[in-house]
Amino acid sequence: MSQSVHVNAFRDLLDGGGVVDDPEQIATYTTDQRQLLTGSTFAVLKPATTKQVADIVRLAARLGIGLVPQGGNTSYCGGATPDASGQQMIVSLERMDGIREIDTVSMSISVDAGAILKNVQDAAAAAGLLLPLSLGAEASCRIGGNIGTNAGGLSVVKYGMTRDLLLGIEAVLSDGTVVSDMRKLRKNNTGYDIKQCFVGSEGTLGIVTGAVLRLAPWPTRRATAWLKLAAGVPLAELLALVRRESADLLTTFEFMAARSIALATDAMANPPSVGAGPGGAILLELASSSSHLDLDGLMEAVLGKAVESGWIGDAYLAQSGAQRAAMWEVRETIPEGEKLRNGSVKHDISVPLSAIQRFLDVAGSQVRAYDADLEVSVYGHVGDGNLHYNVLVPPDADRIECTREIEGGLSTQFYDTAASLGGTFSAEHGVGRFKRHLLEKYGDAGRIAAMRRIKTAFDPSNILNAGAVVRPFEPGSIR
Amino acid sequence: MSQSVHVNAFRDLLDGGGVVDDPEQIATYTTDQRQLLTGSTFAVLKPATTKQVADIVRLAARLGIGLVPQGGNTSYCGGATPDASGQQMIVSLERMDGIREIDTVSMSISVDAGAILKNVQDAAAAAGLLLPLSLGAEASCRIGGNIGTNAGGLSVVKYGMTRDLLLGIEAVLSDGTVVSDMRKLRKNNTGYDIKQCFVGSEGTLGIVTGAVLRLAPWPTRRATAWLKLAAGVPLAELLALVRRESADLLTTFEFMAARSIALATDAMANPPSVGAGPGGAILLELASSSSHLDLDGLMEAVLGKAVESGWIGDAYLAQSGAQRAAMWEVRETIPEGEKLRNGSVKHDISVPLSAIQRFLDVAGSQVRAYDADLEVSVYGHVGDGNLHYNVLVPPDADRIECTREIEGGLSTQFYDTAASLGGTFSAEHGVGRFKRHLLEKYGDAGRIAAMRRIKTAFDPSNILNAGAVVRPFEPGSIR
Repeated sequence: MSQSVHVNAFRDLLDGGGVVDDPEQIATYTTDQRQLLTGSTFAVLKPATTKQVADIVRLAARLGIGLVPQGGNTSYCGGATPDASGQQMIVSLERMDGIREIDTVSMSISVDAGAILKNVQDAAAAAGLLLPLSLGAEASCRIGGNIGTNAGGLSVVKYGMTRDLLLGIEAVLSDGTVVSDMRKLRKNNTGYDIKQCFVGSEGTLGIVTGAVLRLAPWPTRRATAWLKLAAGVPLAELLALVRRESADLLTTFEFMAARSIALATDAMANPPSVGAGPGGAILLELASSSSHLDLDGLMEAVLGKAVESGWIGDAYLAQSGAQRAAMWEVRETIPEGEKLRNGSVKHDISVPLSAIQRFLDVAGSQVRAYDADLEVSVYGHVGDGNLHYNVLVPPDADRIECTREIEGGLSTQFYDTAASLGGTFSAEHGVGRFKRHLLEKYGDAGRIAAMRRIKTAFDPSNILNAGAVVRPFEPGSIR
Repeated sequence: MSQSVHVNAFRDLLDGGGVVDDPEQIATYTTDQRQLLTGSTFAVLKPATTKQVADIVRLAARLGIGLVPQGGNTSYCGGATPDASGQQMIVSLERMDGIREIDTVSMSISVDAGAILKNVQDAAAAAGLLLPLSLGAEASCRIGGNIGTNAGGLSVVKYGMTRDLLLGIEAVLSDGTVVSDMRKLRKNNTGYDIKQCFVGSEGTLGIVTGAVLRLAPWPTRRATAWLKLAAGVPLAELLALVRRESADLLTTFEFMAARSIALATDAMANPPSVGAGPGGAILLELASSSSHLDLDGLMEAVLGKAVESGWIGDAYLAQSGAQRAAMWEVRETIPEGEKLRNGSVKHDISVPLSAIQRFLDVAGSQVRAYDADLEVSVYGHVGDGNLHYNVLVPPDADRIECTREIEGGLSTQFYDTAASLGGTFSAEHGVGRFKRHLLEKYGDAGRIAAMRRIKTAFDPSNILNAGAVVRPFEPGSIR
């Protein structure tokens, strides 16, 4: 059958806005967020209902056409980009963006998978509750993608990752079967927890169409501080002190190296004068929903202990909403600052907290040995052991060429170092198409064998996002 | 081959204490905790190392012998009891009970799967950290069983279930492959999170041999209170108030009906005089690791708000460790109190928090309509939407006969009610052998189909705990 016959077959299943086959419109879906990969497709499908998703999957299975589920197209790993074969169609969930229900007593929200994270946050806030998932891409990423990549972000130290917030799911399997388990239950031990399979599977096991997420009481008070670090501060010990003394009211513990802060403030119209110590800085936030806790007093006590230990030079406590916002803006402008300077080669490293200092030391030497002129921008969610260890592309270099060169050389050294410390090459960005070789290199063989069995069990014909995450199981293969 | 030839083949793989084939000794392994099911086996295998587990699994696969993994044998659902065929062997993990490593900076503990929960708690405490998993059976249950059933217990409202505490795993698959993923990482998004598959799988997908668990700062302060409830108190609203005002320092929110409290105090030598209000009572606890928080003051403020709302009659704040222990003893003696009276028919119900009151009302009517003389003991982890709704066996009735009768009639009404409210028939006890028919009745068909595919992918010959949780996938079957 020709492609146009295929397109018409799908058009029959969908309503008017359901099929995009204009090449210009298609082009906005076929290149990844970092513009490192452009795939090819002859149509983008935009189902409006779960039934339409099931119909699409059944037809694609019958025709032997691959499907690439896509949410906000914000993957850092090419997880939502089709391959170059032209034999995969994109399934965009963007028309399924509704809020289905908020239950303020059960503290849960039920949404379509295509709902934009920011809209879900806002809907929860309007009901006086917090959706504690927050990340840079929140204005464009979608819940289905957050589930597919087990998104982390800025509040993991307190609230966990997407996995920890997911109560219920609705998803379409590769044969069109709908898993309909939109529960609001905190506890439901009735056999294998199938929703866990979809978390982090990047569209390779099914197409998530709906989700129930946990909400938390709205934090009516916040205390936000900026800590300038002395040189050689043991970050993990500082974190342990803060966790202990702030009694789990700690919602944010973000580390920024001095270079990263300078990149951000250079990119800001009115940067605050917070600055960095020789060891960089920490953005610290406590939050509470109680009307009975003196959060500023608690923060001052915590900072006092940290100063006593000699780890901190100056520390500023935000005195107003504007001061708080300015501190946050520095943290959130770092990626933009990197971009303005000519971009960065990103490494989403995680190591056990006890090995963070060692990683920073070894990776620093590796950079110096590789090219003494290279600079790095290091920041991240140190509260979770997660560092974004980004190598800055020199201002005069070709960004994509430089990225490929570093990923072929220095990156491997970083990943080797992380692996030797019990860490990982992807803390929160996933595997997608870009990091499959890293999974094969660093992943435990037994775990990969189990992954491949699951892939084959869920998608025996390999029609769902083929080429991402993991190869199917082949009987007799070693892995 | 005869059974004795089989036993000798396994004996060759294991050291001296590795095979138990004395019928008297075997008998302590073949009856479930509630003494409702006695299975049959010709030998109990007790491996001492992960390699021995892998050797056992490979040999069993070759001989076509089924294996039933067993930890502390405390399943409420017959999940660790072999069937009557005599063709399954028990694999007891009790000799693999070591603590492998504590990392106080990363706040993690690595253990063998056969480690007794209490011992792991104690090892963490000795290092100044908290393992926040606590349940009635903690002195005898083992970590592998906690993972297999995704154990919940008394601190879920703050710290989550076993799943939420699991950082890394080591497990043997049905072909002897070892999944070796003993990570300490909070974040590791590198493809499917295979350890999630084992959580709640009750030994049907692999044999867990090791685990890394998250620890928390040790709560140096606790405030414990006993709240006597007025009649008709909206439990979910009370919980929401307490959660909000205690700013997530809430570690325990346990509900007890008046009848349950009376059963407990009747069974205690020196019961405290706390008593119950007409609506029962709540055991409330706040905990904190900070030296800067006035926890008693916070508790008093929280109780003040609850009293203002008219939901609470009296409230006692524990003034000493002894008073706190006495309050906890009441809660923890309820199961023993039920047992002394002639036992109970247990129902481990979970419903959305917004439906708790409705469940209590409907189930109460169902009991009265079924037999006006029947009494119930209702208590549980209401902070998680989890009620133990137990029907007391009349003092003069045959316990097992009465259990079977109620499970064949009234229980179904409770489960129907829970299901109609979006709830479940098993919040934390699992499925095992006893609740498989309930899963088939109440489980979403798509979810069960996915479960069966996973079972078959992991254990194509169905040698691991066959008969528990779920049947393997048969091509062409509807579910």
